[in-house]
Amino acid sequence: MSKSIDQKARWIEWMDRALQLASLAEGETSPNPLVGAIVLDKAGVLVGEGFHSGFGKAHAESQALVQAGIKARGGTLVVTLEPCCHFGKTPPCTDAVLQSGVQRVVIAIEDPDPRVSGKGISILRNAGLEVVTGVLEEQATFQNRDFIFRVKNGRPWGILKWAMSLDGRIALPNGVSQWISNTEARESVYHLRSKCDAVIIGGGTLRNDNPLLTTRGLANPEPLRVVFTQKLDLPADSQLWDTTVARTLVASGINNNKSMKRFPAGPEFVQLERSTPKNLLEVLAQKNCNRVLWECGPLLASQAIQEGCVQELLVILSPKLLGGEPARTPLAELGFTRMDEVLLAKRISFENLGDNWAIKVRIPMDK
Amino acid sequence: MSKSIDQKARWIEWMDRALQLASLAEGETSPNPLVGAIVLDKAGVLVGEGFHSGFGKAHAESQALVQAGIKARGGTLVVTLEPCCHFGKTPPCTDAVLQSGVQRVVIAIEDPDPRVSGKGISILRNAGLEVVTGVLEEQATFQNRDFIFRVKNGRPWGILKWAMSLDGRIALPNGVSQWISNTEARESVYHLRSKCDAVIIGGGTLRNDNPLLTTRGLANPEPLRVVFTQKLDLPADSQLWDTTVARTLVASGINNNKSMKRFPAGPEFVQLERSTPKNLLEVLAQKNCNRVLWECGPLLASQAIQEGCVQELLVILSPKLLGGEPARTPLAELGFTRMDEVLLAKRISFENLGDNWAIKVRIPMDK
Repeated sequence: MSKSIDQKARWIEWMDRALQLASLAEGETSPNPLVGAIVLDKAGVLVGEGFHSGFGKAHAESQALVQAGIKARGGTLVVTLEPCCHFGKTPPCTDAVLQSGVQRVVIAIEDPDPRVSGKGISILRNAGLEVVTGVLEEQATFQNRDFIFRVKNGRPWGILKWAMSLDGRIALPNGVSQWISNTEARESVYHLRSKCDAVIIGGGTLRNDNPLLTTRGLANPEPLRVVFTQKLDLPADSQLWDTTVARTLVASGINNNKSMKRFPAGPEFVQLERSTPKNLLEVLAQKNCNRVLWECGPLLASQAIQEGCVQELLVILSPKLLGGEPARTPLAELGFTRMDEVLLAKRISFENLGDNWAIKVRIPMDK
Repeated sequence: MSKSIDQKARWIEWMDRALQLASLAEGETSPNPLVGAIVLDKAGVLVGEGFHSGFGKAHAESQALVQAGIKARGGTLVVTLEPCCHFGKTPPCTDAVLQSGVQRVVIAIEDPDPRVSGKGISILRNAGLEVVTGVLEEQATFQNRDFIFRVKNGRPWGILKWAMSLDGRIALPNGVSQWISNTEARESVYHLRSKCDAVIIGGGTLRNDNPLLTTRGLANPEPLRVVFTQKLDLPADSQLWDTTVARTLVASGINNNKSMKRFPAGPEFVQLERSTPKNLLEVLAQKNCNRVLWECGPLLASQAIQEGCVQELLVILSPKLLGGEPARTPLAELGFTRMDEVLLAKRISFENLGDNWAIKVRIPMDK
């Protein structure tokens, strides 16, 4: 059943287009994956396309097949993710594929969801369709890295972001940090938030910075704003307590009745079983988060890294020199004593944002 | 006497070539500037070129004019710096220019040396020659920024270099720092050293790292290795005490007889009047340094910045995460309490060195 590289190569351009379609809904489909689909008729002419635009909405394959109608017969469906074979919010896509009359299905990657995970492909093959898999596999895996990670690990993909000066500082010695980065960089952070399901800070950041944590209207609804606090020692006034702009969740593992009296009216409260970043992310996965953004201080950031809750890092680097003793640095103790122990990140991208730089890296998965 | 832009524009290509010639001796001419010169005959054909290759050696104009011989008559001399008009190690270049018979001299910038500074140009004009000035002025100023700075300020141009992790650390909490940067980055530092007249560290770096501080053979002679120490509490063994590889200078402002007993045989010792980075650089200017490289720890680096002894910064950024509490950061306290006080550097260049980045910035002159 294995397909040769040549057979795959035929479909690369169409799969690339399907991936582009899928990406249109980035940040809007959680807990679902991004999916794009294209239907070609028997002669190879484009007759339908679609993408999954959000949880509960039509699947990409269904949209593309509906658009193609009878022109799909004898044709090809190109889809970025294996079609589902179970009833969820919508009927199984494999049914729609079989009914459409296409004779071939080209797939980038298998659905990691254990309810699908190869079963969709088997159903199609058993029905006599030609199924080509692994077309632009790497790109498709990258596109849905958060969904795949969440399905496999039970917690969302974590991105940690900080803005620092050229001498590695995230604040002046007195805590002042507004602003180290420039306007372009801060706007790029609003954009990043709009691609995430939740933005997480700790109690310290809430008390020091009183941040708004929104996308400034780039996403509707705004991502969930999460305060992870050990002490529940929360300020009476905070921009986060106004939940007309965006929802706020306060999570804590310690039930402190004295502080609870002061708990604000707007936010939702979640009592964690364990007061750890990992447990917080497990709860956020249950709340349909595929991708979260950590915008916290050094202690929580280090803890999140050590518990495997950070997969990507965005460092905004600003050509300023802040100095400071004791230092305000992005991370706290990671427990390393030798240079061969330290985390060696893999570079993803590098971008100029005015006079700032945006550096994106992958945190190694095996540490 | 002012020349129009059009008149200058005619000479840009030739001046660009003269600047290229000058750059061939980068790091080898101190305390002299870099100078390149070209002679064109009456018809505008190239008949001579030269560059200043080192202190005490022939000046660029002389070389180019000797090469041109009688073809210079009625021609043009294009030179990156105003010809000198005083006896130094060689006779005044203005004499050679007048004797050559050129009818025109094209100059990028005036010599900041008060013994010249416009006088060379006056001599030529008074003798009836046409003199065009300000051709590629900005580039020529940049090329000789260290020489110009030293002449005006009495101390060499300072470059501060550090290698840090993506979380702004220059060492692990236990002081381990070898290596944060990769091989390509370390080789680029050898190259940078070869363009500098001296490399400076503090006593702490000497004791912790026992560095070699050479160019690994890229420069001959090697730049002067300088240890700036308050305490003269120097180790008995150090790579720097072997002065067969490169010269070493130990500078201190405090005469500590007890430690002096242990002073090693090879290095030169200098007693500073004031134990400050600025006084050290004044001494190094007297020792013919136009450009020095600071490779010191955070305390000395911060002091050097605060005393205006750092004009450029090279940050090698490595995609590693080190963590650490208390932090080992590139700079110590700079005394800022508001974000509008901090040093805002100007970006010069950005380079990929394997998986490392080399970031070069200018430190503002007015802070």
